[in-house]
Formats: sequence, C-alpha cells, structure tokens
Amino acid sequence: MNFKKIKRAIISVSDKSNLNFILPTLKKYNVEIISSGGTFKKIKSMKYNCVELSKYTGFPEMLDGRVKSLHPKIYAGILNIKKNHSHQIDLKRKRIPNIDLIIVNLYPFEKKVNEKMKFEKLIEYIDIGGPTLLRAAAKNFNDTTVISSIDDYNKLAFEMKNNKGATSISFRKLMSAKAFASTGYYDAIITSLLNKNINIKFPEKKIIYGKLVKNLRYGENPHQKGYLYKSEDNLGLEKIYGKELSYNNYNDIFSGIEIINSFKKNYGVVIIKHANPCGVSADKNQFIAFKNSLICDPLSAFGGVVVINSAVKKKLAVELNKVFFEVIVSKGFSSDALKILKKRKNIRLINFGNSINLNNYNYNFVGNSFLAQDSNKILIKNKLKIVSRKKPSLKQLASLKFAFNVCKFVKSNAIVLANNQSTIGIGSGQPSRLDSCKIACDKALNFMPEKISDSVAASDAFFPFPDGVQELINAGVKCIIQPGGSINDKNVIKAVNESGAVMVFTGTRHFKH
Amino acid sequence: MNFKKIKRAIISVSDKSNLNFILPTLKKYNVEIISSGGTFKKIKSMKYNCVELSKYTGFPEMLDGRVKSLHPKIYAGILNIKKNHSHQIDLKRKRIPNIDLIIVNLYPFEKKVNEKMKFEKLIEYIDIGGPTLLRAAAKNFNDTTVISSIDDYNKLAFEMKNNKGATSISFRKLMSAKAFASTGYYDAIITSLLNKNINIKFPEKKIIYGKLVKNLRYGENPHQKGYLYKSEDNLGLEKIYGKELSYNNYNDIFSGIEIINSFKKNYGVVIIKHANPCGVSADKNQFIAFKNSLICDPLSAFGGVVVINSAVKKKLAVELNKVFFEVIVSKGFSSDALKILKKRKNIRLINFGNSINLNNYNYNFVGNSFLAQDSNKILIKNKLKIVSRKKPSLKQLASLKFAFNVCKFVKSNAIVLANNQSTIGIGSGQPSRLDSCKIACDKALNFMPEKISDSVAASDAFFPFPDGVQELINAGVKCIIQPGGSINDKNVIKAVNESGAVMVFTGTRHFKH
Repeated sequence: MNFKKIKRAIISVSDKSNLNFILPTLKKYNVEIISSGGTFKKIKSMKYNCVELSKYTGFPEMLDGRVKSLHPKIYAGILNIKKNHSHQIDLKRKRIPNIDLIIVNLYPFEKKVNEKMKFEKLIEYIDIGGPTLLRAAAKNFNDTTVISSIDDYNKLAFEMKNNKGATSISFRKLMSAKAFASTGYYDAIITSLLNKNINIKFPEKKIIYGKLVKNLRYGENPHQKGYLYKSEDNLGLEKIYGKELSYNNYNDIFSGIEIINSFKKNYGVVIIKHANPCGVSADKNQFIAFKNSLICDPLSAFGGVVVINSAVKKKLAVELNKVFFEVIVSKGFSSDALKILKKRKNIRLINFGNSINLNNYNYNFVGNSFLAQDSNKILIKNKLKIVSRKKPSLKQLASLKFAFNVCKFVKSNAIVLANNQSTIGIGSGQPSRLDSCKIACDKALNFMPEKISDSVAASDAFFPFPDGVQELINAGVKCIIQPGGSINDKNVIKAVNESGAVMVFTGTRHFKH
Repeated sequence: MNFKKIKRAIISVSDKSNLNFILPTLKKYNVEIISSGGTFKKIKSMKYNCVELSKYTGFPEMLDGRVKSLHPKIYAGILNIKKNHSHQIDLKRKRIPNIDLIIVNLYPFEKKVNEKMKFEKLIEYIDIGGPTLLRAAAKNFNDTTVISSIDDYNKLAFEMKNNKGATSISFRKLMSAKAFASTGYYDAIITSLLNKNINIKFPEKKIIYGKLVKNLRYGENPHQKGYLYKSEDNLGLEKIYGKELSYNNYNDIFSGIEIINSFKKNYGVVIIKHANPCGVSADKNQFIAFKNSLICDPLSAFGGVVVINSAVKKKLAVELNKVFFEVIVSKGFSSDALKILKKRKNIRLINFGNSINLNNYNYNFVGNSFLAQDSNKILIKNKLKIVSRKKPSLKQLASLKFAFNVCKFVKSNAIVLANNQSTIGIGSGQPSRLDSCKIACDKALNFMPEKISDSVAASDAFFPFPDGVQELINAGVKCIIQPGGSINDKNVIKAVNESGAVMVFTGTRHFKH
C-alpha cells in the first residue's frame, strides 16, 4: 500500500484557520515544521515548534517576501524520489533533508476579483511561491503529501493516526489531484482577469472553471449523474421551502430568470416547461400577469416552473395553489403568501436576487469539442423597419417588441403570438417555421380564440416562404415582426399587404437551440 | 507607453523549433542568454553565446535536472519591481542581476495524454521549473517579458526592433495573459488525468479547457461572436469541399454524428435541422436510408445537414443533389459521387472519422453557473417489460428499439413514430407530451399515411395521462415504447389493451433539453 512517513513539513497558508485540526497530530508524530511570515507567527502563537524558512535555507527573504521559498534546498527536499539511489546520494552530498508534507493554501484571489479590487492591486496578490510548492509536492505524490485546502486537515490527521504517522498512496494521489485543480483553477482566474483587462473574450486557450455547489440527485435523467457548479461567488438563488431542486429544475429556473431579467423591474411572470416558456406576460400586476401566463397553455403549465418578477402576495398565492407547479421562483414572498404556499407539500419556493449576473458566454458541448459564443444580450441591433403599407399603432408596436423579445428565449424555430403584453400561443422547437406557426396558432385558437383577432406574432428568424405568414394571418393575426432577409421577402410582404396586415423587420435574428 | 529594455533572458524550451526567429534579434540588442540542458546545447550549436544556468546560479543541477532553475538568484532577478527602490537595493546588495525576458515552452503534455502514454511515465513529465518561470515573469509583466509559445518569437522580434530592444506594456500584458493561460491549461490537463486515474468525474473544482480551432463568422446569430474549441487533438471532421462551416452547422453536424454513432457500423442516414433530427433511418442501404429519412419530413429537410454512416456512392449523390442541403457529412465519398456533389456551389462536404470520440461530460451554462452531467450513453438500463396483453413481434421489437433510440436525441418532449427502421414522424420540443404526439402523427399522416398502420411510437418519458397514447392509437399506431413510471400507468395500459395495441416499458427516461 506504499505508505510514506511524514517527518518534515512546510506550512504556508493564507487562510490560517483550522490549523488546530492538524498541528497536534504533527506534534504527536514529531514532524519538524518549517514556515515563514504570518504562518510562522501563527504557529508560534499556538505554542508549537516551528523553524523559520529563511533560517532553514540560509537565504534571507528578499523583495518584501516575493522570493522566499524558491530555493533549491526546498525543492530538492520535495522533489527527490526516495527509491532513486542517485537522488538520495545527491541529497546526502549536499546535506539536504527530505520534505514529506506541504500544506499550502493560496490567497483567495477569486474572492478579491469578485469584490472588484483594482486590477493593479490584484496582480500584486498573485502567488508564485505557493503554487510552486503545491505543484512540486503534487508531482511527487508517490513520496510527498500535499494539502491544498483547510478542509483536508482533518482527513490528513485521520490518515496519519491510522497509519502511524504515514499516509497511503491513495490519499496522496487524491490530494495531488486536488492540488493541481487548485493551481489550475488559480491560473484560470488570473488569465481571465488579464484577458478581461485587455478585452480578449475568446483566447487561444479557453479555460472554464467552476466550484461545486451541489451534488444533484441525478442529471437530466436518472441514469446520469448531475452536479451544479458556480462560476461566481453568489449563485443568486435561495431556497426557502421544499425539497431539493433537480437538474431540470435548475435548468428551467435559469431559463425563466433570463426572460424575467429582460423585463422592467417588478414586471411580469413566466411559466417554463422543458426549458421553454409556455406562457409569458410582462404585465405590471402580478395577478394578471400570472393569469395571462397560465391561460396561454394551461395544459403545459402543469408541473412547470413559475418565475415571478416581484414579491408574491396573498392573492397570487391563492391562485398559484390552484395549479400543480414544481417550483415557484420570485423576488420574495409576503408572509401570508408563504403560509398559503407552504400548504403544498411538493412545492419548492425560491428567492432570486435583484442582481443575479447571467453568464457573458455561452458554451455548447458537441462531439469532442465545444462551441463558444457571446451570450445573446441584444434584442434589436438597429432600427425597426416597417415594410408593410399599413403602419402599426403604438400599442401594436409595444406588443410586437414584447413578442419578439419572448421569441429570443424560445427554442428555434420560434413563433410567438401575443395580445398586448402577454403571449397567447408559443410554437417552439420545430424544424420547419410553418409548423411552429401552426402550433402557435393552434394554442391560441384552442385556449384564447377571442384574443387572436387583436394579436401580433413574432418570428425568431425570417420566413423563407409566405406560407407561415399566411397561416398566421388566416388564424387572425394582424401584425407580424420578424428579422427579414429572405430572398422571398418580397412575396412575404405582398401576402401581408394583400390581407391588410402589418409587418415590421428587426434586422436581428434570434436562433436558440 | 512604459517600454522596458531587454538585457538578460532565460530560455528553456521543450519545443526547440523557431529559435532562429528570435536569437538574431536578441544578439542584435546584446541580450545575455541563460540556459541549460537541451536548450543550452541547441543555442550553442546555432553559434550563439549562452551562459549555463548552473554557472549563473553557482548551484549545480541536481536530481537528474528536477531542480535547476528553482533558485533565488533567478527569481529575485525576475520578480523585482524596477521602480521599487528597496527592491533595487536588495538586488545590489546581493549582486543579483535583473532578468528581463523569459522564453519557456512546456512539454506537450496534452499530446502525450492523447497518445495514451502510461500514467506513471506521464507524471514524470510534469514540469515544475518551467511553469514557475512563466508565472513569475507573467506576474511581473510590468517589468518582465514572458514568451510561452514558439508562435510568439516573431512578434517579440518585431516588438524589439520597433522599440530599440524594448517591449511595450501592451505587448507584455498580452503575453502575460497567454502565459497564465498556458500554465492554467497545463494544470487543468494534469488534474483531469489524475482525477481520471482515481475515477473522480466531478471534482470540487471543475476546469474545462479547449484550444481554439476556428474563429467562426458568427455565433448562433450574426450579432454574436462564435468560436470552435477542441478538447482533444483530433476534431474528427475534415472539410473536403465548400465554404466555411457556421456555428449552427457545427452544432447540427455533431447532433447528427451522435445519432449515427448509435447505429451499426455503416448503417443509416440522419437529417438534422435546428439540432433536431427531422428524418432518421437505420437502414443498411444508404440510398434507401436517405430516401426514408427525407420522406419523413421533406419540407423541414430543406437546408438541413445530412449525416451518412457510409461512403457516399454515385447513386446517392445524384439523389442528394435533388434537394438543397447545407452540409453533407459522411464517411468518405466515392470519386464519381464527389464530382456530382461538387456541382452544387453552396454545399459543404465533410468527412468524419470512424473513431470520433464524443464528450463524456455534458455542461449546460445557466445563469451565472453551469450544470454538469455524464453524457447520456445508455439506451435501456435494465430489461424491457411488456405491459400490454398483446406481445410485440420480433420485427416490432426491433422497430420499437430503433424509435426509442431516436427519441434519445430529439429535444423533449419527444415522440417518434417509426416504420421498421425509419422514422415517419417526429414530434419535438413541446411543453406538453400530447402536443408532441399530435405533431408526430400529423407529420406521418401528411407525408406517409400508408405507413402509419404498421408503425410504432416511442416516447422519451412516461405518458402522464392516456390522452397522448390515445392520439397515437387513433392515428393508427399499433405498438408503443415508453419508460413508464407515471401514477397513471394503469389507465395508460388500459387504453392500450382496449385498442388491442402493444406497450413496452423501458424503465429508462431520455429527457434532452
């Protein structure tokens, strides 16, 4: 089982907590401790023996501590292979002792980045000695133990106690993987910071990183393992009631928040099912917004995720309880609303912050590769262009913009029918635009036939033929917004004009897959 | 503009090519070069002056070169701040000269990992000194220039020539970002390797990395920038004809290859539109397979991506040319087929290898976080369970499995109708299962009504109510496969039995979003 006894250790930690979990064990097994600066003082203050690093190397600290541990005596001590005879002769000849344990944790750079410390100051905090100690010990895991997190002190103490002051190879290998993760992660943050500073978004070597937040019960399906990682310090969600969220819940919740974040502050409700909206309203009144979202497709809403852009009040809570939803996400809940909602055993209630940052980049893992792109944060890049003879009213224009905005978040091909600031039919995920038109119209005709005559439609991409437009007009739609740009635009506009409808071009497309 | 003159450099390179691009410039500006081992020999053999590193530090190499540059004289030379008075006094007192330039490239670890070198041997190749030199110089970019890639020698020479032997701050900062990318990337590969060795798939710190393959014209939409990164050395695709592939092309191509890879060797054709299949056939005969894929939804197939699991022959090429496709992907093309296909100006022809590795993990970027999961590589985890009174024939069973397999790749809710080994109707991306049933049936009734009476249907998840099943049976479907597990299973089975149809439970769900 390849056990290696620990006789000498270097400890250099930015986070000085938890040392009491490991120092007694090191003392018990007579481990010599080498340290410097703040760590040295801390260990001394805890009444443990400790050799100062500069005394150990015989080389005084220089450049305000920028060069401390970068010394051959240290690295020969860490990197030698114990079973390599010539290595051991080298050490003896130079009287360099073995170093068996490295305990290092790095300055919490990520936290400082998130705290928006000034760039020049941040750079000063980049640790050079620490990662090198970690990497050297981690490379030589066959002989050396490396601890890169304060959460592993207990495990080390346990390991040493179980093995008479030694560690097992399986422990050392695990700790080595963690150490290289910590140095890789650290440099990933630094290079992101530098790239941001010089405005490079997609460098030759792209490193994406995240910290595990939660082991989910499973992934999209029960036979897949699933996990949630956060890229920023703050996930932006707070569960206040109910059982654990699933992979698909998180996916739906964030899909909903993306849409809600495109609305005015406190306006609107979205109902999500299978990562697609099945009802959206941007109405200011939360009760009306919810009712309008629900009526858009009450069958699909069943078991969905509701995202509300304001604090849920009692009246809405009563209404929400009439339908089975898996998750309700909102900007808080009034206490009487909470009381009502908590009557539902299987519901999850989630608070989402005002300031949730959405990813700036979007990655799509395909084959053995990934596609990277900017997140889609623009609605209409240039000016709207009215291409029909008839012009839209101001109210129609507002409704067109609303519908086009919702389109952006519906999987392609996407057609959204809206009445005022609420959807009345959503056609999503079809390989043909005509089919999406049919689905959207069917929904509207099925659930809200009375609202279709005054409705507008939006398309996420141009109509390749007039057939889709004709389908919408036949159903009663009077006003259509779309990017335009097809070679058949002329025929499409002709069909619109012949029926006396209105058409607006955005020039901006919104595919989403 | 903060120019810094280069007077002294350390060069330590694993890849020794391209040195002729930079050594003449260094000589021209009288830069002192320090080097060791193979790099030292190489520079000497090229007739340039060079000081040996061990002579420079006064400390001989140890442990077969494991400890060479890790010396305070080196790091004080790199890390001192020029405008910091006390730093400069420190240097003078110890007679340590400044080091202004570091040229290091690391052992191509990634390549060796992909070459499947033995784990123990790979570990030996982990570089400790190199990354430390890079990181130290990259940290001190305000004073020090760092070059981490052989592709940047020319840029450095150009920079020095333009600035009388100095470099600008913008150049140094860019090179610093690249250096931290290279060290972060390096450690990301190492930690992945270690985690794989100890079977940890989702560590606390997840680092995902890729190398830029291509700047795409744009992302999913023209206002988004788009890029392709590869995680492995081999992308697995080879473009043999036509204009550049777009972001959406790549997405569709890989969606198609995933399905094709689930078929027997050389069997089948898939047509993809908006990342969803709109026609799939697993037939052995490529001509029949294509015809069957096309007829499933000829309207949607327009402008799609066709993936063929065999080398395209002349007969198929003629047929392919009758429809407008954006991309044809296959395992090669016969020369006469190529000739025919190249008549189409706007087509792209792509070869895909036999051994394309698909990602083992799947990441979904949501909010400020990402969801991580195993790729969905299982079709049916346990045994099939026949739950209807009537049993399926062997042919039906084969067809059911085919349909259920296609379902796995269709966005949820997914319903797939199949006749034998070809789809005849695909309902995708709907928030309600009933709607997906309707869409799949509509397609089949529209394009192949004659084939529906002998057809089977698959559902990616259970039917929450009998309505969807009833819809399928009413259309003429005789045999249905689904995971099962709804509280309404009993009623669903009852509806199946009453109509004399067959139902099979898989116990395995296949949501895809």
